[in-house]
Amino acid sequence: MSGIVTLTTDFGLQDAYVGAMKGVILGIAPGATLVDLSHQVAPQDVAAGAFVLYSAYRCFPAGTVHVAVVDPGVGSARRGILVETPSYRFLGPDNGLFSSIYASEQVERIVEIQNRDLALPEVSATFHGRDIFAPAAAHLCRGAPIDAFGPPVSDPVRLDLWTVAVEARGVRGHIVHVDRFGNGITNLSRSQIEAAAGERLFRVETEKRVFDRVCRTYADVPEGEALVLYGSQDTLEISVNGGSAAGALGIGRGNGVRVVWV
Amino acid sequence: MSGIVTLTTDFGLQDAYVGAMKGVILGIAPGATLVDLSHQVAPQDVAAGAFVLYSAYRCFPAGTVHVAVVDPGVGSARRGILVETPSYRFLGPDNGLFSSIYASEQVERIVEIQNRDLALPEVSATFHGRDIFAPAAAHLCRGAPIDAFGPPVSDPVRLDLWTVAVEARGVRGHIVHVDRFGNGITNLSRSQIEAAAGERLFRVETEKRVFDRVCRTYADVPEGEALVLYGSQDTLEISVNGGSAAGALGIGRGNGVRVVWV
Amino acid sequence: MSGIVTLTTDFGLQDAYVGAMKGVILGIAPGATLVDLSHQVAPQDVAAGAFVLYSAYRCFPAGTVHVAVVDPGVGSARRGILVETPSYRFLGPDNGLFSSIYASEQVERIVEIQNRDLALPEVSATFHGRDIFAPAAAHLCRGAPIDAFGPPVSDPVRLDLWTVAVEARGVRGHIVHVDRFGNGITNLSRSQIEAAAGERLFRVETEKRVFDRVCRTYADVPEGEALVLYGSQDTLEISVNGGSAAGALGIGRGNGVRVVWV
Repeated sequence: MSGIVTLTTDFGLQDAYVGAMKGVILGIAPGATLVDLSHQVAPQDVAAGAFVLYSAYRCFPAGTVHVAVVDPGVGSARRGILVETPSYRFLGPDNGLFSSIYASEQVERIVEIQNRDLALPEVSATFHGRDIFAPAAAHLCRGAPIDAFGPPVSDPVRLDLWTVAVEARGVRGHIVHVDRFGNGITNLSRSQIEAAAGERLFRVETEKRVFDRVCRTYADVPEGEALVLYGSQDTLEISVNGGSAAGALGIGRGNGVRVVWV
Repeated sequence: MSGIVTLTTDFGLQDAYVGAMKGVILGIAPGATLVDLSHQVAPQDVAAGAFVLYSAYRCFPAGTVHVAVVDPGVGSARRGILVETPSYRFLGPDNGLFSSIYASEQVERIVEIQNRDLALPEVSATFHGRDIFAPAAAHLCRGAPIDAFGPPVSDPVRLDLWTVAVEARGVRGHIVHVDRFGNGITNLSRSQIEAAAGERLFRVETEKRVFDRVCRTYADVPEGEALVLYGSQDTLEISVNGGSAAGALGIGRGNGVRVVWV
Repeated sequence: MSGIVTLTTDFGLQDAYVGAMKGVILGIAPGATLVDLSHQVAPQDVAAGAFVLYSAYRCFPAGTVHVAVVDPGVGSARRGILVETPSYRFLGPDNGLFSSIYASEQVERIVEIQNRDLALPEVSATFHGRDIFAPAAAHLCRGAPIDAFGPPVSDPVRLDLWTVAVEARGVRGHIVHVDRFGNGITNLSRSQIEAAAGERLFRVETEKRVFDRVCRTYADVPEGEALVLYGSQDTLEISVNGGSAAGALGIGRGNGVRVVWV
């Protein structure tokens, strides 16, 4: 274990919910290193939380524990789970938050978090981030074995987030995230596109604009102009040099994007 | 001492005021672990700062130093204080920010922070968070005795935040905080209500709605419906399943809430 | 080296860009202490980023590495640089972000960051914060010599941020930042004003109001009234006691401010 615990939630930064989780973790695992991915996930937006986690989890060293809590079903029958991959552990509610992990990592084991000896003594019905997931992450850091948390899970909830359709005329995906700069990040990866395209040339069609080429960087077009490039996740991204594609082109999450052979 | 210092301020995250405090602490106590509770307290809203601190301080291990700076009177004659309880130390301006601590903890000692040897060499008139409270917290972490900071204080400022009235017909309190999800958090704790109710049944009356029962969790009512439950502080909370009680019911801080025997 | 790395960006807190940088740093320098200055710099506003860095960098102990990424030219020919001063190292794009450092510190060396052995194995065209500056900062923490990063730079980009004009009738500067409380922070330092004024008295003229004296603290005027004082950077600041000068007086960044002998 690296001793690093990352936190991704929709708790925001006005309340002290995130601070409460950190206090619990440090009480159990005093040497843990805590890193925020984001707490500004839109309230109860599980798909948005899945994207935030996906966009950064691989940057951390092996042995990192990733805790994610976007949890509209807290206190209901929804399960809490622990997902083990060769390099990481993921903890959170079983509501699809880890769909992107199932798609990109080799999952070795998933267990349900049931063992109340690895939770706080009192578990509320509304804040499992503090009462269950934070102590579970801290116990993992201290070496608790995965089997100790609960029985295996074979049917975790998956969201249909990342569908890419390969068609005769090209490849079709959509915008999965609009970032702070107004960039529209798609689920179409460079490797998928290049594998499907082979030797063919292609253009990129969005609902608002058609692009004849994929640029290398923003500065390949004049300031204020729109472009597509492979962004920092190596997926196709719709951007405006020195501006916001969300503002200038009106793009938003869920918009369709097509790569079409020419 | 745990070496943990928490920070609660109204400094926001656009400016580097919080970063400046952290730099000062790490310069004096290099091994300190710094944790943000919130810096998004509404500017100069002491009561809101008191709630944020109250909602998370107990999650931290014994020996934690809690620094809170919501300080409209900075540079005036208002005192800076250090509050000692069996498990924690609290530092900040004496303006009522620790009212919730006086109500919930056994206070062992309060001293005025006067000793300039435990402050930065130059103390500005506008930023005691950086110049006085941050260095004081760091010196505490390094083992400075509480008496070294200054003389005892017997009359700290208290805000009338947490008043609960026990009446013949029931118990009366109010909403002390509306969180990011639109939940209205009251100052009526489960233990107070149960002690006053004894065997009696009760309903909960807010300005907008009457509730016949206290639910266990959000999912006890259909999505979009309002409910009351004991929230994560174990106080009565007005919520909407999968939505915002603030938006749907128009509740806000200061609204009265009554528990009425039936 | 202190092992402390501060981060200043315009990445915001909704996306996980900052978290990605931290993961990279901790993967290379596991014991590093990471401190956020601000990530809420207005998108692509280099001058605002320069101010945030300036306002806090000196609070950190000697040996601290300051990373700043406000980088509208990422992926273009703009250089990445490492600036060495007696106490600190600064890393980021060479676009003027360190202008305030050149003005206030003794610069010992500036080198271009070119060595790809001190970057991530794959460098994207859009996210040098993660791929170049974060690993460079981590390698610095681990003791990489400055010469290893690349060749010297003698002509770094400077922004004309901090111009103060000394005139016969007084001194003229402007508001360089409006903080969360609505305070207008100017570039006119107490030492500059006092050196120019000598024995003369002066008044302070802003576009909206004339002030006959410099107060010591907010409480020197009644609540709700405007004042000028030397703020926490020891520069002239336009404020309202218990309120917002931005809201009450309509001041904004770039507004002229004059100190006039009377």
